[in-house]
Amino acid sequence: MGWMADETGLGKNSANHVALTPLSHLRRAAVVFKDHLAVSYGTHRKTYGEYYQRCSQLASGLVKLGVQPGDVVATLIPNLPAQAEAHFGVPACSAVVNTINTRLDVGTVAYIFDHGGAKVVLVDSQFLDLAEAAVAAMEGAAPVLIEVADDQAGWHASGKHQTYEDLLAGGDPDFDWILPTDEWESLALNYTSGTTGRPKGVVYHHRGAYLMTMGTVVSWRMTLHPVYLTIVPMFHCNGWNHTWMMPLLGGTVVCCRDVSAKAVYNAIHYEGVTHFGGAPIVLNMIVNAVDEDRRSFDHQVEVFTAGAPPAPATLSKIEDLGFNITQVYGLTETYGHVTECYWKGGDWDGLDKPGVAAIKARQGVAMPMMEHVLVRDSDHQPVPMDGVTQGEIAIRGNAVMKGYLKNPEATAEAFADGYFNSGDIAVQHPDSYVQISDRAKDIIISGGENISSVEIEGVLMGHPDVNLAAVVAKPDDKWGEVPCAFVELKPGTSPSEADLISFTRQTLAGFKAPKKVLFQELPKTSTGKIQKFELRKLAEDL
Amino acid sequence: MGWMADETGLGKNSANHVALTPLSHLRRAAVVFKDHLAVSYGTHRKTYGEYYQRCSQLASGLVKLGVQPGDVVATLIPNLPAQAEAHFGVPACSAVVNTINTRLDVGTVAYIFDHGGAKVVLVDSQFLDLAEAAVAAMEGAAPVLIEVADDQAGWHASGKHQTYEDLLAGGDPDFDWILPTDEWESLALNYTSGTTGRPKGVVYHHRGAYLMTMGTVVSWRMTLHPVYLTIVPMFHCNGWNHTWMMPLLGGTVVCCRDVSAKAVYNAIHYEGVTHFGGAPIVLNMIVNAVDEDRRSFDHQVEVFTAGAPPAPATLSKIEDLGFNITQVYGLTETYGHVTECYWKGGDWDGLDKPGVAAIKARQGVAMPMMEHVLVRDSDHQPVPMDGVTQGEIAIRGNAVMKGYLKNPEATAEAFADGYFNSGDIAVQHPDSYVQISDRAKDIIISGGENISSVEIEGVLMGHPDVNLAAVVAKPDDKWGEVPCAFVELKPGTSPSEADLISFTRQTLAGFKAPKKVLFQELPKTSTGKIQKFELRKLAEDL
Ligand SMILES: Nc1ncnc2c1ncn2[C@@H]1O[C@H](COP(=O)(O)OP(=O)(O)OP(=O)(O)O)[C@@H](O)[C@H]1O
Ligand SMILES: Nc1ncnc2c1ncn2[C@@H]1O[C@H](COP(=O)(O)OP(=O)(O)OP(=O)(O)O)[C@@H](O)[C@H]1O
Ligand SMILES: [Mg+2]
Ligand SMILES: [Mg+2]
Repeated sequence: MGWMADETGLGKNSANHVALTPLSHLRRAAVVFKDHLAVSYGTHRKTYGEYYQRCSQLASGLVKLGVQPGDVVATLIPNLPAQAEAHFGVPACSAVVNTINTRLDVGTVAYIFDHGGAKVVLVDSQFLDLAEAAVAAMEGAAPVLIEVADDQAGWHASGKHQTYEDLLAGGDPDFDWILPTDEWESLALNYTSGTTGRPKGVVYHHRGAYLMTMGTVVSWRMTLHPVYLTIVPMFHCNGWNHTWMMPLLGGTVVCCRDVSAKAVYNAIHYEGVTHFGGAPIVLNMIVNAVDEDRRSFDHQVEVFTAGAPPAPATLSKIEDLGFNITQVYGLTETYGHVTECYWKGGDWDGLDKPGVAAIKARQGVAMPMMEHVLVRDSDHQPVPMDGVTQGEIAIRGNAVMKGYLKNPEATAEAFADGYFNSGDIAVQHPDSYVQISDRAKDIIISGGENISSVEIEGVLMGHPDVNLAAVVAKPDDKWGEVPCAFVELKPGTSPSEADLISFTRQTLAGFKAPKKVLFQELPKTSTGKIQKFELRKLAEDL
Repeated sequence: MGWMADETGLGKNSANHVALTPLSHLRRAAVVFKDHLAVSYGTHRKTYGEYYQRCSQLASGLVKLGVQPGDVVATLIPNLPAQAEAHFGVPACSAVVNTINTRLDVGTVAYIFDHGGAKVVLVDSQFLDLAEAAVAAMEGAAPVLIEVADDQAGWHASGKHQTYEDLLAGGDPDFDWILPTDEWESLALNYTSGTTGRPKGVVYHHRGAYLMTMGTVVSWRMTLHPVYLTIVPMFHCNGWNHTWMMPLLGGTVVCCRDVSAKAVYNAIHYEGVTHFGGAPIVLNMIVNAVDEDRRSFDHQVEVFTAGAPPAPATLSKIEDLGFNITQVYGLTETYGHVTECYWKGGDWDGLDKPGVAAIKARQGVAMPMMEHVLVRDSDHQPVPMDGVTQGEIAIRGNAVMKGYLKNPEATAEAFADGYFNSGDIAVQHPDSYVQISDRAKDIIISGGENISSVEIEGVLMGHPDVNLAAVVAKPDDKWGEVPCAFVELKPGTSPSEADLISFTRQTLAGFKAPKKVLFQELPKTSTGKIQKFELRKLAEDL
């Protein structure tokens, strides 16, 4: 390896080796961008100097509460200033920040409190009942609740707990941040969405978050002072690490309690928002906004979308409105996005709208901070890049989790053969772009043939009466598995099972057509994903 | 520190921990930016696909020559494609790239060949005589010379050595790159300019170069596909690491054998150059270009300048021509630039031209990849940020060298008290911006008072007859040291020593006026810096 014959005196020391951490970005911003607007939420407008000070007070306040290095501090907060501050203030006292999804049920929140072992929970007044109920349902020791009131939105302090502002007021604005000495120290604990079962506790290291911010700048074509709107919940992969990125750029974080088309348009028009991320459903919302909610703007807004490919119709409509959409892909396990559908230009610039949409439907190529993203077969060998052969997306790079908390078996399984195995089934196009067809667990194997549930769902959703459809495998004596569809109908319609089956046969090969169709509401996660594992249980019992 | 109570299974593995190296940028670019123009030099126009392949062939060719991991491969090449390729091809076989200043004398080149222990030297035909003479003057084993012809510029192969293109032709385009397994492995060996004595061999690690590229993107406000002109020699701190940065952005490296105003204007006009770096002398050249060498362009060109603060007159002229100048500061020991005079806007935007020039004369604040840059007193304590108190610039961060090769004493001294001590004397303004007044070795201490040689030189250069002036300390029985000036006069002038001394007394306090003035040509380094250590020797013997 690249060691010289004589390396005497060439080791690491405190001058030439500093642990990578996103905390460094805010420390620098507090000096370099001192008077620049850092966080904006209605009348709450803090400069970088003030933001840094509030984070220091938070860290100091937590230490006074007894929080020790390595302890977990959880949050149940919408995309508000306190949630952004927790991203710096919690690790600034060397604790691990565990942002919890505010839409979860009591049982799951209790599970997370217990599993993560939170010492303190910062909780928004709106979610106080949820937090209290979860604490009551816990098995282990209860965390201290600190209440974050949001008077601007009419959520006033209950008086039952110490408030966040009180905690800050008692904190030392000159608190000396405890920076990691090892960049592998734990920074954050994030539970997966629970689409495929119980959420798993994903642990992030400081190094990964730092490098995630550096790479995202490049992919998102960001220069100094972007204005970033928080649509992606900060409790979802820490908002794809964007809160940690902003001080690197002297950017402004525009907070948004409730996501609506009006809120997005207002933020663009009044705050000059230049960038935001969101699921395709947010794009739909913007496209379908009523006229009085729309606002004019004259710059292009850069949008990252993930979770599912944006629908072609949405895409062409929203791009005409002044938004540039880039699909990205990733998982909680990868700090958020790790591939991007980089727009190559060249021939692509001449494509018509369906052609553009077909390209933008791909998940794309590795982002700059990642070493390698590819599709592997069941022996973990690369599949041919032919756009046809399916395999599992495998990911290698510095924005990959340390592992699942207290679950070394699942961790080892996820890391089999040198890569993180995503559980997502995809093809790789000749230009190396990855395109997802399904989750591994959702593939249906019928008579030895792989059937993509996503493909059948796409056909069903083309039926005029169908609102939402999900297809899972039903055990079958002859074929092994056969497709079984669950369908939500549009109000006032009542097609028969036979109608829908024959409709799918117009497009699909016979073996791909569902053998059974059930009409019912579909079970969803708190992030709106359909929980197929619940449907599979139903299909098994048919 | 931030370790959780139970971290079982949360260690590093090959999926979640990859050694940081700029080599990863080119590997990714070869896929993502495959057909994009990577390197341009006249008729030599290579895409990223081709560039990657040529670098692989170089690595393979070197291995066939017997180069082993950790061996040194030197270059004596202007800013040409082969020099860019060496930045990737040499480390791709795990060797250490040692780009040598082509303007050095035979003795110094021989010293570097011996000290660095180069196994192979890639040498441009123009510098073959230099390389051969240096080999003849060496004490140790001679390296293999590989000749890089430049037929476009009329430098044809001598026939005496294997050519670079032959070496590549014999190399395997599918050569498997040997990536570092530890990011602390050595990547490059760079000798300092020798302003203060024998050049020292500075060793870079892969991690530092990687992070340097990531931070520079932000400071230089770069987005995808910049067009970068090579003015800063790639043999000077590896051209401030810009060659390693370009593939991260899918940028184009425009090569330039000889720097001239015409070449710069042509590159902007015909190649669409968006960014370049250069010493203030290059800015002068552009400002003073004759009309027929100028070309029109309608975009703003971003320029980093370092080595000395840009002169106010140059600055206002060049910015009117469509260039935006940012002063940066750094040393060979810090991979190039580590501070930037970030333009804060706000009140500054209202400044008049002298006001702007006064700000842009500062070296500024730490760049994003650096942890801390400050000014410390002789006890290594921070000086007050008052714009007056002088001290030494101290630097901490990941773009700091491993140390000086085979010189552990000098290394330890440079790293005293947790920072790299730069040897540059500066003040820190209240907003934390650093401004250099002198090199530590050049400060004159007279009767206990510090005198800045730079200040006296500035006054002398205001005299109409003076072309260039340098001031050093002369030992003095009464005062300890007194200022002694060396002056180059403009042709046809002949002021007396007394004339110049009385001229300086009009502006300077008596104790700052030089006590002696000598008229002679000034000794300079190959990078054009005045060698005060030579002048000090002369002054001692007076
Ligand atoms: N651009 C995208 N296109 C298609 N699917 C995507 C995209 N981005 C993310 N996904 C899907 O989302 C998944 C990651 O989601 P997340 O980590 O929030 O939890 P989950 O996988 O839904 O839940 P759990 O792991 O608990 O079952 C990916 O594995 C993939 O299936
Ligand atoms: N923007 C700047 N303004 C003023 N001086 C600068 C600036 N940038 C660099 N310098 C000077 O250049 C020096 C770094 O130069 P370099 O590393 O090329 O070699 P050198 O210090 O001249 O040579 P040696 O170390 O061998 O004496 C700095 O220490 C500083 O004195
Ligand atoms: Mg998952
Ligand atoms: Mg030096």
